[in-house]
Amino acid sequence: MKKYYLLTPGPTPIPPEVALESALPILHHRTSEFGAIFTQVIEGLKYVFQTQGTVLLVTSSGTGGMEASVVNLLSPGDKVLVASSGVFGDRWIKILETYRIKPETICNEWGKAIDLGSIEKKLKTNSEIKAVFTTHTETSTGVVNDLKTLGEIVAKTDAVLVIDSISGLCAQELHTDKWHLDVVVGASQKGLMNAPGLSFVALSDKAWNLVEKAQLPRFYWDFRRMKKSLADKETPFTPAVTLIIALNQAIEMIKKETLEKIWARHEKLARATRAGMQALNLELFAQNPSNVVTAVKSPQGLDSGKLVKKLREEYGISIAGGQQDLKGKIFRLAHLGYMNEFDILVGISAVERGLKELGCQGFEFATGVSAAEKILF
Amino acid sequence: MKKYYLLTPGPTPIPPEVALESALPILHHRTSEFGAIFTQVIEGLKYVFQTQGTVLLVTSSGTGGMEASVVNLLSPGDKVLVASSGVFGDRWIKILETYRIKPETICNEWGKAIDLGSIEKKLKTNSEIKAVFTTHTETSTGVVNDLKTLGEIVAKTDAVLVIDSISGLCAQELHTDKWHLDVVVGASQKGLMNAPGLSFVALSDKAWNLVEKAQLPRFYWDFRRMKKSLADKETPFTPAVTLIIALNQAIEMIKKETLEKIWARHEKLARATRAGMQALNLELFAQNPSNVVTAVKSPQGLDSGKLVKKLREEYGISIAGGQQDLKGKIFRLAHLGYMNEFDILVGISAVERGLKELGCQGFEFATGVSAAEKILF
Repeated sequence: MKKYYLLTPGPTPIPPEVALESALPILHHRTSEFGAIFTQVIEGLKYVFQTQGTVLLVTSSGTGGMEASVVNLLSPGDKVLVASSGVFGDRWIKILETYRIKPETICNEWGKAIDLGSIEKKLKTNSEIKAVFTTHTETSTGVVNDLKTLGEIVAKTDAVLVIDSISGLCAQELHTDKWHLDVVVGASQKGLMNAPGLSFVALSDKAWNLVEKAQLPRFYWDFRRMKKSLADKETPFTPAVTLIIALNQAIEMIKKETLEKIWARHEKLARATRAGMQALNLELFAQNPSNVVTAVKSPQGLDSGKLVKKLREEYGISIAGGQQDLKGKIFRLAHLGYMNEFDILVGISAVERGLKELGCQGFEFATGVSAAEKILF
Repeated sequence: MKKYYLLTPGPTPIPPEVALESALPILHHRTSEFGAIFTQVIEGLKYVFQTQGTVLLVTSSGTGGMEASVVNLLSPGDKVLVASSGVFGDRWIKILETYRIKPETICNEWGKAIDLGSIEKKLKTNSEIKAVFTTHTETSTGVVNDLKTLGEIVAKTDAVLVIDSISGLCAQELHTDKWHLDVVVGASQKGLMNAPGLSFVALSDKAWNLVEKAQLPRFYWDFRRMKKSLADKETPFTPAVTLIIALNQAIEMIKKETLEKIWARHEKLARATRAGMQALNLELFAQNPSNVVTAVKSPQGLDSGKLVKKLREEYGISIAGGQQDLKGKIFRLAHLGYMNEFDILVGISAVERGLKELGCQGFEFATGVSAAEKILF
């Protein structure tokens, strides 16, 4: 018998009551019944984003929401700034370069947070910068960035602040309006406990001003068209109807638990995971760890890919390895979305068992779960 | 008690065994288990497209697949031709214009097929034309275009032929390779009996040559990146995993029935629908009607929107109205995807009942189902 556990930073487990909603007979997307559900979802997303601004929904991966933000805000020749310390921060650079916009970049060592001081300095010396792009929780390194302070810095300038919170949304504290975040991108398959296929973009009025003026080409991604359809409780093109209906159910669960309790749950699960790993003498990779995913350095001499493979193939437990330069060097345990205390114990226990069976030395077996449990209960 | 029936040209009904697949616990998209399913889906799509070429899968609506085709084939300044006689033919023009490519256009009266003679002439007098864009089955008018002949015409030139077969795929006969179609775009929520959220693009080697050289900007839509990932049984970005798993089930059903039988089933259902409508003294809108959807002119004095609304709200039966200039003037009964003979009788009967209750004259009640049944059984 093999049971499967998903402890990866997206897709994350889908609650059965959410999954079943997506299996109900499909509705047509231009009916009052679907319109009512769609409106509820948009309202629910406003709560999740903590915004009174515009929230748009796109049928695409999160990356689609990122590209949509770029083409809706910018025009050829625009000056922009990207602050990155990981794979997903770098994705902003790649998207921008695709549109022949060469961003100024502040790239920090991976594992560290982005450097707010340098961003502030850059903005002061270059008043032409139209937008600052960065990441909320950098999934590749397990780092969380301080968006509250960054928001205060950027709000003093004419630039808009554009945030990839694809993995952070509904897991790590975020206040779009209160923190002066102008554009925030999210996706369905992370904290929102849904299947992948939907991305979301929250926009402030300051950002919307740019949308009206932007000259980069856009058809499917066009925010103006989406906003216009929103007034009719519709999307411009056939949306992923079943995923939206399931999302409505997930948002109901989120509203019932409340965002504050969800953030606190993630904080506790993350803290327990970190304690469990440290009890095993393992070193955390992130200097400023997020509550989304815990990145752990592989013990000396062990390719983390081997551990990930063993857990997946032998125990049915999916965790993530390292990406790009971190391949083989770290593994990542997510505590994201539909996860409770017992799930964390499963994850830590699987790591302990894997390390033991791979012959790793230098740690006392069964101390990880013990350390975690002391925090969890 | 209200039962719901979906007789619209997308989304179409989803077989329960397909819907339930999408509710199973989600798999991670970078595992060998998902890789195996993804590979099966791509192979299955090759059968559906009738191609040995490249088939790519995008997480987006069908329109995303259309935009992706434009940006992957063309460069600024390219000369292209669009043949259109409906909303979806015109969509090619709008997408092209977004990228500042002003196409030559051959726009026919709606309800007629595209004009092959004019296309041939245009191609002969303008050898610079790089691509011809058109539609297989024009959903807005119920017309099918003769792609076999068009394929022969374009194959003699250096131009590639780009087809929107979003509503036609797996319903109306189509042979990508045999008919020399270079690019064919499909989507999940039509003949493929799945939920919306996936689009597909089949590409010939002739088309792939352009992909390598195209200069329009593309990141999420980049076919080169998708083809590279395909070799690893992956997609570049997190795909709509649950929709792909469900699609695998739908494709199994399609392979079992066989494409030839599916095309024949659609042909018979369409023929019965047309006979049913004509028995009610209603006029068909399309001169060259497709097997996907039957467009019917509203009886004198009746706004077709009223009929559509009555059927939906009072009988639980969704059919489609007219779009743009055809709003109020036609209604459309789809016989697309997971539909059998009895579904057709339901649709025709609903129209008869609606017309009667709306006080329409000039037809003999209960003759529509009778005429249809004589063809169906």
